Amino acid sequence: MDAAIGDHGREPSESRSTTGERLDADNLTVAYVGGGSRQWVPNLVQDLALSPFDGTVRLYDVDVESAERNAEFGNWVGERAAATAEWEYTATDDLGEALTGADVVLLSTQYDPTETFVHDLDLPKEYGIYGAVAATIGPGGILRAMRTIPTYRKFAAAIRERCPDAWVFNFTNPVHFVTRALYDEYPDINAVGMCHEVLHGRDRLAELAGEHLGMDADRSDISVNVKGINHFTWIDEAYCDGVDLWPLLDELACGEEGNRRFAPADLEDESPFADPWQVSWELYRRFGLLPFAGDRHIVEYATWFLQGGEEGLNRWGVKRTGSDFRAKHWTPAESEQTTDVEAWLSGDREFELEASGEVLLDVLGALAGGDDVVTNVNLPNRGQVDGIERDTVVETNALVRAGEIRPLSAGGFPRPVRSLVQGHVDTIETITEASRTGDVDRAFRGFLLDPQVRTLQTEAARDLFAELVAVEETYLDGWDLGASETLAEADAY
Amino acid sequence: MDAAIGDHGREPSESRSTTGERLDADNLTVAYVGGGSRQWVPNLVQDLALSPFDGTVRLYDVDVESAERNAEFGNWVGERAAATAEWEYTATDDLGEALTGADVVLLSTQYDPTETFVHDLDLPKEYGIYGAVAATIGPGGILRAMRTIPTYRKFAAAIRERCPDAWVFNFTNPVHFVTRALYDEYPDINAVGMCHEVLHGRDRLAELAGEHLGMDADRSDISVNVKGINHFTWIDEAYCDGVDLWPLLDELACGEEGNRRFAPADLEDESPFADPWQVSWELYRRFGLLPFAGDRHIVEYATWFLQGGEEGLNRWGVKRTGSDFRAKHWTPAESEQTTDVEAWLSGDREFELEASGEVLLDVLGALAGGDDVVTNVNLPNRGQVDGIERDTVVETNALVRAGEIRPLSAGGFPRPVRSLVQGHVDTIETITEASRTGDVDRAFRGFLLDPQVRTLQTEAARDLFAELVAVEETYLDGWDLGASETLAEADAY
Amino acid sequence: MDAAIGDHGREPSESRSTTGERLDADNLTVAYVGGGSRQWVPNLVQDLALSPFDGTVRLYDVDVESAERNAEFGNWVGERAAATAEWEYTATDDLGEALTGADVVLLSTQYDPTETFVHDLDLPKEYGIYGAVAATIGPGGILRAMRTIPTYRKFAAAIRERCPDAWVFNFTNPVHFVTRALYDEYPDINAVGMCHEVLHGRDRLAELAGEHLGMDADRSDISVNVKGINHFTWIDEAYCDGVDLWPLLDELACGEEGNRRFAPADLEDESPFADPWQVSWELYRRFGLLPFAGDRHIVEYATWFLQGGEEGLNRWGVKRTGSDFRAKHWTPAESEQTTDVEAWLSGDREFELEASGEVLLDVLGALAGGDDVVTNVNLPNRGQVDGIERDTVVETNALVRAGEIRPLSAGGFPRPVRSLVQGHVDTIETITEASRTGDVDRAFRGFLLDPQVRTLQTEAARDLFAELVAVEETYLDGWDLGASETLAEADAY
Amino acid sequence: MDAAIGDHGREPSESRSTTGERLDADNLTVAYVGGGSRQWVPNLVQDLALSPFDGTVRLYDVDVESAERNAEFGNWVGERAAATAEWEYTATDDLGEALTGADVVLLSTQYDPTETFVHDLDLPKEYGIYGAVAATIGPGGILRAMRTIPTYRKFAAAIRERCPDAWVFNFTNPVHFVTRALYDEYPDINAVGMCHEVLHGRDRLAELAGEHLGMDADRSDISVNVKGINHFTWIDEAYCDGVDLWPLLDELACGEEGNRRFAPADLEDESPFADPWQVSWELYRRFGLLPFAGDRHIVEYATWFLQGGEEGLNRWGVKRTGSDFRAKHWTPAESEQTTDVEAWLSGDREFELEASGEVLLDVLGALAGGDDVVTNVNLPNRGQVDGIERDTVVETNALVRAGEIRPLSAGGFPRPVRSLVQGHVDTIETITEASRTGDVDRAFRGFLLDPQVRTLQTEAARDLFAELVAVEETYLDGWDLGASETLAEADAY
Repeated sequence: MDAAIGDHGREPSESRSTTGERLDADNLTVAYVGGGSRQWVPNLVQDLALSPFDGTVRLYDVDVESAERNAEFGNWVGERAAATAEWEYTATDDLGEALTGADVVLLSTQYDPTETFVHDLDLPKEYGIYGAVAATIGPGGILRAMRTIPTYRKFAAAIRERCPDAWVFNFTNPVHFVTRALYDEYPDINAVGMCHEVLHGRDRLAELAGEHLGMDADRSDISVNVKGINHFTWIDEAYCDGVDLWPLLDELACGEEGNRRFAPADLEDESPFADPWQVSWELYRRFGLLPFAGDRHIVEYATWFLQGGEEGLNRWGVKRTGSDFRAKHWTPAESEQTTDVEAWLSGDREFELEASGEVLLDVLGALAGGDDVVTNVNLPNRGQVDGIERDTVVETNALVRAGEIRPLSAGGFPRPVRSLVQGHVDTIETITEASRTGDVDRAFRGFLLDPQVRTLQTEAARDLFAELVAVEETYLDGWDLGASETLAEADAY
Repeated sequence: MDAAIGDHGREPSESRSTTGERLDADNLTVAYVGGGSRQWVPNLVQDLALSPFDGTVRLYDVDVESAERNAEFGNWVGERAAATAEWEYTATDDLGEALTGADVVLLSTQYDPTETFVHDLDLPKEYGIYGAVAATIGPGGILRAMRTIPTYRKFAAAIRERCPDAWVFNFTNPVHFVTRALYDEYPDINAVGMCHEVLHGRDRLAELAGEHLGMDADRSDISVNVKGINHFTWIDEAYCDGVDLWPLLDELACGEEGNRRFAPADLEDESPFADPWQVSWELYRRFGLLPFAGDRHIVEYATWFLQGGEEGLNRWGVKRTGSDFRAKHWTPAESEQTTDVEAWLSGDREFELEASGEVLLDVLGALAGGDDVVTNVNLPNRGQVDGIERDTVVETNALVRAGEIRPLSAGGFPRPVRSLVQGHVDTIETITEASRTGDVDRAFRGFLLDPQVRTLQTEAARDLFAELVAVEETYLDGWDLGASETLAEADAY
Repeated sequence: MDAAIGDHGREPSESRSTTGERLDADNLTVAYVGGGSRQWVPNLVQDLALSPFDGTVRLYDVDVESAERNAEFGNWVGERAAATAEWEYTATDDLGEALTGADVVLLSTQYDPTETFVHDLDLPKEYGIYGAVAATIGPGGILRAMRTIPTYRKFAAAIRERCPDAWVFNFTNPVHFVTRALYDEYPDINAVGMCHEVLHGRDRLAELAGEHLGMDADRSDISVNVKGINHFTWIDEAYCDGVDLWPLLDELACGEEGNRRFAPADLEDESPFADPWQVSWELYRRFGLLPFAGDRHIVEYATWFLQGGEEGLNRWGVKRTGSDFRAKHWTPAESEQTTDVEAWLSGDREFELEASGEVLLDVLGALAGGDDVVTNVNLPNRGQVDGIERDTVVETNALVRAGEIRPLSAGGFPRPVRSLVQGHVDTIETITEASRTGDVDRAFRGFLLDPQVRTLQTEAARDLFAELVAVEETYLDGWDLGASETLAEADAY
Repeated sequence: MDAAIGDHGREPSESRSTTGERLDADNLTVAYVGGGSRQWVPNLVQDLALSPFDGTVRLYDVDVESAERNAEFGNWVGERAAATAEWEYTATDDLGEALTGADVVLLSTQYDPTETFVHDLDLPKEYGIYGAVAATIGPGGILRAMRTIPTYRKFAAAIRERCPDAWVFNFTNPVHFVTRALYDEYPDINAVGMCHEVLHGRDRLAELAGEHLGMDADRSDISVNVKGINHFTWIDEAYCDGVDLWPLLDELACGEEGNRRFAPADLEDESPFADPWQVSWELYRRFGLLPFAGDRHIVEYATWFLQGGEEGLNRWGVKRTGSDFRAKHWTPAESEQTTDVEAWLSGDREFELEASGEVLLDVLGALAGGDDVVTNVNLPNRGQVDGIERDTVVETNALVRAGEIRPLSAGGFPRPVRSLVQGHVDTIETITEASRTGDVDRAFRGFLLDPQVRTLQTEAARDLFAELVAVEETYLDGWDLGASETLAEADAY
């Protein structure tokens, strides 16, 4: 009968969320795609050094020197007295080598930001589109998606070949487009899109509960029912240690806190990362749900706030991320700064081993059989957000436990919010379809749907699109630019 | 500005799962509808006496003497040395009084089982329908639903009036019909249908992991992705402490364990509760998913196994619950026996305070801010089971935490299983619709759809229906029997 | 057995399109709501006088003098030698009287256009919104809907009471909002929204087939697969006498015909009704389907073309309907002129009896058992437009035959067009829901979704909304203006 | 600009019903697959000889002698004086040759019925399944589907290659399975499944209108709203020349006409084609809609009527089609007899040229620009039957006009009927999916879902399935019998 074992097989289930093997805490193999990163890798190195895991990290990067520097750092950290775990770091510029047999793959790499982010922000501005950050939607975000998707399709194909059951964590923006592309290329991938925005929102709610309700709370006390697409998520339930926060939110939204007004001058010395939540409160007042990502991201989806030029944006306390700032400080997760690994290695700067508080480590712990974790993740929609298209990548909470990342069922939206969210999903899905064959004209249809773009005439939209393509042409592998009538028509291209 | 607070309000959300207030562990008010129960209340009394909660329990029963006996027992137990919590028990036959201001409502009561269960089992048998237990579907189960729904509509209406925000736990069968009726009557109710079958399944998987994989496991180590409707649930993922159990399940299904064959004689001395899982293994082999309720329940939905008379059923190790057995041993949860409270009170029997291991206490604990719990619940479908009709009551796991019971997103089914499940949902929803106006002819349409009934000619089905109605007429409040053409036609009525 | 007849009844079908009784050609009772109309009634009078029907027309109008004038004209026409049918006309200002027992109800009346249309066009313009006609969507169209819906709910309620089985034809804009409201109030109404735009499109295709293919064709030779919502309809199939027109359309779209460019000066002497189809060709090039309503309507839905002020609009050969023009020439169907009935009656102007070619007469003929007709209608979506929300009023072709108006199944849209159409449906449905209780704040959510409005900041949108409400307040019966926070906040109100 | 023409292209529309080229009446090329047919071809020959078309017919058959005989007959008929059209007939056993450049393809051929139909009827009977005709569903119908689908996939593939734009008419049972397979293989095929059952129903309604309402009516006066899947269609609207027939139907259903009762002896001398409609009336009484195919077909879907052995069936006036009868008289359309072409050719039997009244000729006429036709067709569901799965082949009315066959939007079903229909769709779609890879075990899942099969234990079902496969093995090309565990397990195979 032995031969028959497994033959009845498991019916290819339509129910699969992301479920794989339990991780082995004593012997993890991690492949880091984008291993030369100056921000994320040094943090990860420290987190791992203090983690309950042992194992190997393979740092893959086309810029292999950066990866080697990070590997050196990683091994150096392992020798510090404070390090409690054993990790070995290697560097490589061979993707296949990095992936082969990996248990965990971390994806965090992107085409040269200095040369692309500037255009993503500055060219639309010339057409009157004042996107705040141009990171994940709007003309700049869509171009970023077009640059990134083909590369991530290649990663997905390589994972299918080299480590088909690995847990894959994507940190690269636009998280919805990119995670969607991974699944579109390899439907059985165990990939999860990760993002901090919802975590920051929970931090904020903890502060508010402290300030206004006198509760001594932090992020872990806050539970929310979050749903939407990455950077355009909403909550309709919020608790602090079981206390319903909605009455407080309602009071704040309608009171002084929720009705602050900013002049451009007020923001002069502010970081673009400052976030007084005024867009969020206004949307709460309008639609009865609370957006739950930074305002600078929300405005790219809820585009009323981009109208009236930079001043219109500033009125809500949102400052445009300048393209220079963006190019200088970029990291995949839009963090504020990078880390000077060399200074530590050379002893120029004193090193103190410190955990970053990154939720990834908790997630890995849960997958390895540690404490369950509930946190926000980006996964293909199998019903967790009701009323939004199946298969598109949505963001909700998930329960993470040994071998399993399973989204919570977050329900649907009131119609007006559903309409806003699904409208962006239509763009995302149109671009995804277009990317299968590299069909630029079809991608342009998704571009036209974007509400930032809908403030332009179609011809202007076409010219903006063509200009963006022209200056970023080097990075648009996988798109059949020559076959495009849209580009051929445009004066701009 | 004060006046405006709350006015912007929360948009009536389509996303609401069951979310209410955090319970106050120090001062719980529990209303028990069916408080004269000889099995459930004595268990609850002991569980509460050992719980971290203090509070009051109001035992409501039309048979107020039984409720008073249980109240006496409850207060007596509180005086035992081993009791660590403080609870006060009262009895009443006034529903409104019991419910007013309750934090938690427990529903566990039904029309006289002795006089109804016998017919539910015996009349269909006369027509050649050998339902194993007739508890929740099939001709007997449908009649039970018709008897029960109108009463539970009244409970829901009273809850809306007296304790609209209470957490309501329904233990009464048919759990899907009954919980559905609660929501149909009062859509904002915080009601949850509770059932042991999935828990027993997890126990079984723990045993198998012990036996075959040498793991020292219990229910708490087993995680499954469960979905379906109550008593017709399926799993497509199963882990023991993170170890994927599917290869083991596949091996067992195809080996000796999954291919046992029983003769009627083998079952002669068996309890009807014995369950060798042969139906489950057979369905696994056929459909690639594993049913996850007792076989005696599954066969009422997967009706191939009822064919060929009692022998057909026995071949799989399933023994019909005799109607006499059923009448004698009934409890809402189909447990095996009742408890002799008087013997304890009189000292005729020694009393030892013992927790029952009931998951309800863990759930209450989580709602009060204790440890999160993941367990199976029955709730209206808001997407948690993809591909099954919205609003019908489905069973999946849920995450329970302070103030919140939120289903996990369990995904969908392969088409053949979806078809089986949705077919029963069509019956349930047809009966539910019919119950709004007491339309017997419309209810009969749901009866006709049932696959047990489809082994009859329509005229025989009508006669069976009419016979069941005739003998149970006293208990069919809320149905307009006089207006029914179906009944008028039938020779049987 | 007689008593039982009809008792088994027809199951309230979810399949019902609009199906009623066959009309009796010899004895029709027509109720005309808006019977004082200077344009439509005189045309109808002549059409009926030349029709195969006899009967009675009851002209209902709050301005009963106009109705009486039209009745006089109607009876006068009946006495002309050329009149072949017998019709009697009466006038009344009692709605119930007009409707009682009517076979056919024609709805064509609206609040004072002179005082409202001006604001619908001019106020948004002050906010930079250059709607071309402000008739059926956009801020002006939405306000028009808000003014009109409550009245039409009353009409629907009266029809339910006085002539529940009548065939009801609605000619009043916004046709989708208004027809939707009729069904929302009285779901079993046999109402059909009627509009000329698709007919004009078929005329245009016949011209093109003549010009470019040398075919001698008129509207009746053209068949199209039309779908969408009124004034935002699209075709994806077009035949002239069975010849596929798509190659021709593709050639025209990409050639000179489809690439004309207009300066403001070119349009100076043009009527706003002139329509060079340049918007249509551009949308064809962008999305692969051809819009099929006048460009001046299309641009209010496909709002790229409204960007860049009046010049932006003019570039495509579309001229704004000036508010003065609009007020002067208004009729429900936006026709160009009204008719001077008095001049005919007094003999000042020679009268020649002439059929208007109105499709309504063909439709009535088909319903009475004459030749089948295939024409475009607006009906609740029961699947005829796939992928668009159920129940919203969509426009497709329908087959009209004795007793039956049944939509053709038009299929779905490619995703980008579906997104555009469903986006407007979300506005329409949000307003419809809001109108049930007169909830202004909820209506404002629909207003915010409109892509014309999305070019404003939310505060500016609120002020525009409040200004429109303020100046049209007299006409906003049925809305609870006092309860609105949105209005309370606005400086403008 | 020429090069660009067509490049913008028509967006691959999701709305496509079946739309192709207008047929050229003067020069039609018809390919007849199954051209040796003794019944259909001789009829077609006569219809064409009297039609307004001229052209060529290529008779393809593996049995080329039969095709040649028919070709000889066709050319001989063309020389009769009464023949008004010019047609040339050729015969071939080369499929590609027959199809190349064809305008119209007629599909009407099946594996040897003598050797298969017998088993389809007799083997299930041994298991107690008394299917009335075993033609299109139930164990026999499913096996027939399994035999037929692979062949028709080949036809579809050949059509894609040789005449991709041809109009394809499928007459072969099971019409839903077979037409579905054509689309599954070649999604852009212009294929239509044709069936007489609905036409017979309209004939019957005309008779009833004559008998009971004194109307002088024939089929062309009857309009119905028909929907469902082939042989399991229902109507919820019926008119005779615009007169609503529902009150009459209700009266008949509840009166003597609808309540006749038959004993086996009553049917002894009856043809199995006799049809007193008692099943239809009973289902009308139960569900409020009227089935609209012959009772002998309906009972295979509404399986209550098959219970209780042959007597159970007879009670409703339905007589089983004996397998001997079936084998002797088979034709694809289940007609009663075949035609003796040789007798005509030899002069042994007098020949009179006679049109068959076949609707196909009207359909071809409409496609060629003649009068529009409204008739029932089987097409993939694009929304025409609401609530039933997309893409499955459903039956509704369609409007046929030059170049276009477009279904009418028939709406949905009340839930209980929807459940019955969708249940069978689940079987059909499961088998269709299984046929893509020849996966027998997956096909068996569809078999298990069938309600006829659900009267068996799963093991008996498996044995019946294996027995059927065993005796029909020669005809099961395209199924991977060797890989099947189901077959391996069965004692029967």
